[in-house]
Formats: sequence, C-alpha cells, structure tokens
Amino acid sequence: MHKTKVAIVGLGTVGAGVAKILLDHGDRTARNAGTTLWLEKAVVRDLSRARDCELPDGVLTDDLSEVTGDPEIKVVAQLIGGIEPARTIMLQLLESGKDIVTANKALIAEHGAELFARARELGRSIAFDAAVAGGIPIITNLSQCLTANQVSSLSGILNGTSNFIASAMEEQEASYKWAVKEAQRLGYAEADPTMDVDGTDAAQKLAILAHIAFGIKIDWKKIPREGIDKLLPVDIRFAKELGYRIKLLASAQLSDDGLELHVSPSLIRAGEPLAEVRGPFNAINVEGDQVGPLFYYGQGAGQKPTASAVVADMIDMAVGRTALTFRTLKLFTENHSDVQMCSPDKIRGRHYFRFSVEDRPGVLAEIARALGEEGISIASVIQHEPENFDGDTKSYTPLVIMTHTATQGQAARALEVISKMPTVKPGARKMLVQD
Amino acid sequence: MHKTKVAIVGLGTVGAGVAKILLDHGDRTARNAGTTLWLEKAVVRDLSRARDCELPDGVLTDDLSEVTGDPEIKVVAQLIGGIEPARTIMLQLLESGKDIVTANKALIAEHGAELFARARELGRSIAFDAAVAGGIPIITNLSQCLTANQVSSLSGILNGTSNFIASAMEEQEASYKWAVKEAQRLGYAEADPTMDVDGTDAAQKLAILAHIAFGIKIDWKKIPREGIDKLLPVDIRFAKELGYRIKLLASAQLSDDGLELHVSPSLIRAGEPLAEVRGPFNAINVEGDQVGPLFYYGQGAGQKPTASAVVADMIDMAVGRTALTFRTLKLFTENHSDVQMCSPDKIRGRHYFRFSVEDRPGVLAEIARALGEEGISIASVIQHEPENFDGDTKSYTPLVIMTHTATQGQAARALEVISKMPTVKPGARKMLVQD
Repeated sequence: MHKTKVAIVGLGTVGAGVAKILLDHGDRTARNAGTTLWLEKAVVRDLSRARDCELPDGVLTDDLSEVTGDPEIKVVAQLIGGIEPARTIMLQLLESGKDIVTANKALIAEHGAELFARARELGRSIAFDAAVAGGIPIITNLSQCLTANQVSSLSGILNGTSNFIASAMEEQEASYKWAVKEAQRLGYAEADPTMDVDGTDAAQKLAILAHIAFGIKIDWKKIPREGIDKLLPVDIRFAKELGYRIKLLASAQLSDDGLELHVSPSLIRAGEPLAEVRGPFNAINVEGDQVGPLFYYGQGAGQKPTASAVVADMIDMAVGRTALTFRTLKLFTENHSDVQMCSPDKIRGRHYFRFSVEDRPGVLAEIARALGEEGISIASVIQHEPENFDGDTKSYTPLVIMTHTATQGQAARALEVISKMPTVKPGARKMLVQD
Repeated sequence: MHKTKVAIVGLGTVGAGVAKILLDHGDRTARNAGTTLWLEKAVVRDLSRARDCELPDGVLTDDLSEVTGDPEIKVVAQLIGGIEPARTIMLQLLESGKDIVTANKALIAEHGAELFARARELGRSIAFDAAVAGGIPIITNLSQCLTANQVSSLSGILNGTSNFIASAMEEQEASYKWAVKEAQRLGYAEADPTMDVDGTDAAQKLAILAHIAFGIKIDWKKIPREGIDKLLPVDIRFAKELGYRIKLLASAQLSDDGLELHVSPSLIRAGEPLAEVRGPFNAINVEGDQVGPLFYYGQGAGQKPTASAVVADMIDMAVGRTALTFRTLKLFTENHSDVQMCSPDKIRGRHYFRFSVEDRPGVLAEIARALGEEGISIASVIQHEPENFDGDTKSYTPLVIMTHTATQGQAARALEVISKMPTVKPGARKMLVQD
C-alpha cells in the first residue's frame, strides 16, 4: 500500500495518544486514508523525559529540522500548547511545505488570521477539529455537514474543567475550592486552572465556532465572559430549588441586532440536554434554519478523544479532503458575512438575581421598585429564613428573584442601583437564564 | 462566480425542500461550495400536480432525458422513494455521467452493492447522508470524523414515526391505534405506516450504518426485527413504574462473538439521553475505542432537515470531497473487516417479561422455576391486583419480571416453556432492557 509519512511535534498527553493510534492501529488508519500513515518523526524538547508511548528506534528527536528538512513528510500534527514557540514552529512547518493538524485553540483564536493567510500563500492547509470540544467533531459538522443552513444559534458547554467543577459543587454540595482540588486530583484541572475557570478557554473556542458558523471574524477578547470562579454553593442551591442547574455556557445567538456572544454561568432548566451534561463532558446545541435543532455530546478533552480528532484530521489530509475544504471556505482570512457583534446591552433574556439583604421590613419592596423602574418584571421570588451562607456574622437573608425577559443593559443598570442600597450587602449575583 | 449545474429528480416533500434551498439561498450554497449550484432541471412524473415550491420557467420537466442528455448537469439529487423506478433511474443517471445524492435508504439497503459498483466502474460517486436519520449527519460523522476509532457500539432511535407513536402512547396513556391516528393526523405517519412501525425502516437504516461503522455487508432482512405495532399500554405503564421508557431501538454491538444486530422495542432507563428523545426526533449513541461515547440528536425526517442533508451532500460533491471519500472507502463493494454477524441467541442483556397469569397460588413459583432452569436469575418482580388490560373477561393478573443478564436464547427458551403453561395466557411479552 502507498505510504504517507507523517510527524508529531510535541509528545505530551495528546501527542502520545496520536502516536499510539498511528503505531497500534495502522490497518485502521490505512483503510480509512487509502494510504498508510507512517510515523516518521516525533519531535520533543527534552529527549530524557519519560513518555506515555513507546516509539520505534529513530523516531524520537529534539531536532525540528529532521521534520522541516524531510520533504517526504507531508502531514504534521503540531501538538504544542500555548502561543510561543507554537506559532513560530507552525510557520516553519508551513514554510517547509507541511500540512498541519493542530489541537491548539489558543493559537488559532489568537493568530488564526496570520497562520491561515500564510498557509494559503504557500498552498498548504491547516485542520483543527481537535481544538474545540475534543472528541466532538463540531468543526467538521459546521463547515461541512450544515452548509445548507443559516445557523441562528449555537450554545454549549465547551470547557470540561469548569463543567466538572460546577457538577461537583452541585452533586457534592461542595465549595468552589473543594471542587477545584477534586478536579486537580482527578486530572481534570491543571495546577493553574485560571484559563479554564475564568472563561478564557471557552471564549477562545466560541470565537472559533462563531467564525465558522456565522462567518464573522471575532477577537475572542471582545466576547463578554465570566467564569465559574465566583460561583457560590448558595446559587447552585437556589437554582436547583427553581428547577435549574448552573453551567458555564458559551453562547452565540443571531438576531436582527446582530450576533450576541457571551460566556457565562447560566441557569439551564433541569432535564434539558445541556443541563444534564455532567463531569468533564462537552455538549453543543446548534440551531439551523433548515435542520432545526441539533445536539452533540461527547468528551471534550483527554488523551484518546482529542487524539481521535487529530488522527481523523490527518486522515482527511491524506485523502485530500482538507485541502479542498481549506481552499473553499477561506477561514480566518476574511469575513464571510455582514454579521456584526451586537452590544451585550441589547441581549434579551431572563435573569436570576441573588441578593443578600438585611432582614427587615420594606427591603423587598425597595428592590422590586428598582427593577420596575428599569422596566423589568418579576417572574418569581424566593426568600427563606435568614441564613449565613458566606461566613458573615450579621443577620442577612438571601433573596432570589427570577425576572421575565429583559435586556442585559436593563439588568445591569438595576443591579447597580440595587447594589448601592444600604440594606443590600455587596456581592450580589446576576446570571442569565436559558429557557 | 463559477457555476455548477444541478438537477432534482422527484419533487415531493424533500425534493421541494431542496429546490427551495437552491433557489432561495444561492449565496449560501455558493459560499460553501465555491461555485453556484444552479438548478437547471427538476424532473417529475406528473407535470400537472401541485408542488410545494415555485420554479423558474423551463426548470420543470417530465422528461428524464433533459437531465441525462445534458452533459453540463454534473450533480443530481435523486429523490424518488421506493425501489423501482428509482433503481433504474439511478443507473441511467450514473451511466449518463452524473454524481448522485439520494435520500432513499430502502434503495441503498437493497441495491447498494449494485449501485455503488456501477458508480465505481463509471468513475462516479453516490452520497446518501440524508438516507439515515434525516438532519443528523451520521453518515459523514462515521465515515469521516470517527475514522481513528474502532466503533464498538452503535444504537439509536432511527424511525421518527415509531418514536412519535411510542411517545404519544406514554404521554397520553393511549392505545397504539389512537397514537397511529394521531401520528397520521399530524403528518408523522403515512396512510400505510407498515414499513415504519414493523421495524423494516429502522433495520434498513441500521444495515447502512453498520456497514460504515463495522465494515460488514449485511442483508437488512437478516437483522432480527420487531416493531412497535404490538406494543400495549400495559407494557409502557410497567416500564414507567420500573423507571424506564420504551423506545424502538436499532442496535449494533461488537463483541468477541461477532456483531450483534437487532431492531426491537427496548426499555431504556428514564433520564438516559436516548430515553428522553420524544416525538419525531432521532438520536444515535456511538461508542468508539478512542473517542468514547458520542451522542447525536436531531430531526430524523421532514422537508427541511432532510433537504439540509441532501444539499450538504450536493455541496460536498461540488467541492470535490465526495469523490475522494467514495474512492477511498469503497463502501458497499466489499467487506472491510472480518466481522461477522453473531447469532441472536448469543446476545446478552437483561430482559423484561410480562405475563398474564391466572390469579391463583403457585403460578409465580412455577414461572420462577422455569426461568431458573434456563439459568436466568430474577432481578425484580411486579405483581399488582388483578386487572383487565386487554379486554378479557376472566380474572388474570399481569406479572412483570425483570431479569439479570442472560442470553436471548435463554430468554426465548424460557418464554416458550412458560407460554405453554395452562395458567399463563397467550400473548406474553419479552423485551430487551438497555442499562
């Protein structure tokens, strides 16, 4: 059978997973690629480090030029994380004539335009289905399977670490701190989980998906984002009482005002597919004008699911599909539509407010009036006996208000007014409700 | 922009949906195809019949040779149902040099081998993502996105008509007859729904999916199948009491014994994603050795979802991806693996038995002994006060037994023995339980 030489750059968790598939399941990849994917080189920084895979003699190297200098190596899985040296290596690989598969969403979100333009100039391709939602092939589905649709809505759980933490807080009635430690212990969170829990990772992924689904080039930093790092057990408990679960939701909704994007903890009604996504799993809802609602669910990270996506992309390259798709879709080089991001102020939805108020008469009336003055009407209220949920020694009562539909702007202005009331303790919480 | 001439043969519900996308959303398809998909001809049998779409002058014709005779028409959506004349027209189209998109699963399941071999001889391609699960792009996902995996399990709700009927029976506590009428009234069932409700449609779809996922060529008629047409409200009620819902499940499981395939009403634990699929929706669980579990959910039929899949395939053809995939995968021309179907006798699982027994002492002991003699152990039993659930005037008691794991063979033999007992009324029911 015909042989296509391939290489891996970066032999961490995902790189080792890719090597294992290529080495252990060559018959499988050959059958689907029509050519044997021959692992010629695996480039690492430190040859002495222990690896999670065994390589044949002569494959492991710390010299990138053994890849860039070998014109027979056609396809490279570039699996180094972070921005540099990943970006420079990517450009070197492109310039030496390689087609590149990557799982590096930060790099695509930050330098996609530069890298894709360079690839195009050089007649090369980049594939990146592993960069978003791990094993869920959402990139291929959006760019190839849903091409007859105008996508109107895309929302999902794109960060498995945050989802694991939020699920653990709910299931174990635990604090955020405990849940983070548990996630770290089980390998679902890194030593420094900041990028995962503060919404950065989900915003970068959302920017990539929105570019493909809506044809709009977005700087991920402009997406309003909030993580789960300020989530309190009290909110999870109230959400549950109201029949909801709290999930870190990445959302893109198209309306007459434009494209509304945000990443934030949101209340999703229990029983809805997205609400039932537990632990490190990812899930995505897509709504198209032809196909209607579609729901995808699978593992968003981990060695094998991510390697599954990387190797599928390598097979696509060997078959020749990637080159055609890359040439046709012109991703990251231009806007494909007139869609503009709309101001978050205009985003409409229901809102969850949780205040901590002094336990005395008239406070609820005052808050209700402030909401009314912003034109926000109240759907439901929960006020229980006073409780001490945040260690304060004074007697405060948690007050939860669910509103009918209002804009983010209205909700933000009302929150500002209410937060200044002397009877309301600092640290009020506002979240979007997905119905 | 470059123009690719296309045609539609058959302008029923789906054909009209395809025409509408091509005519109303040409900018969208052009952007994704890199060429304008120009609807040159739409061939129908009866020109006088009212259509669900408006066509430009000169497009509608009842003469197939206006398509076969025009070498500029490259891609044809062949959207006639049934076997003949669909098969003959398909061959004529291939011989006149067309690439073909079809939604006709019966034709693919019955004559896939012949049609694909002919297409290959002629250097043409056939695409058929619309043939299974409507808007869920499961064919592309299996043949392109999951190529790094050995699929070990594939199960799903592939017939929306049956699912609508089973859902309606559960939600309305209604009879099968009532639910069929309701499905017909709402357009979810045809005047003669036999092929949907007896499991034929789901078995044909399962044969296609299993061929792609497991590389095995299967005569769909050999798949053990049972429909929902004998489902009684009493079984739905007992399933609910036990925490399950009944769904028509199409299932393919790979084990050391081989590939086990069946279509049958099955008990699925409430809360599981498949159990919560209501109305005319479809859903599919896939398990791969790399990706782990993946779940897809969407509309399995209807004008727009099916047209979405057809037009995506037409775009794939225009881009050139289909030709590469078709050439590489060699579908329906050979077995791609040594996998063999295994005898249904060997299928292991839990079983639900519902008997109608005479209300007198010793009957349960007798039945339990018969199960024990087949090596089947009982997990739980429900026996209520006598009730008349099937119009019989004698006093019978429904007796429901859930077993631990046993083979289909064991369960079938036990059922045969028990059914012959004079204290047991004919019409006992056995179903698989999915845990």
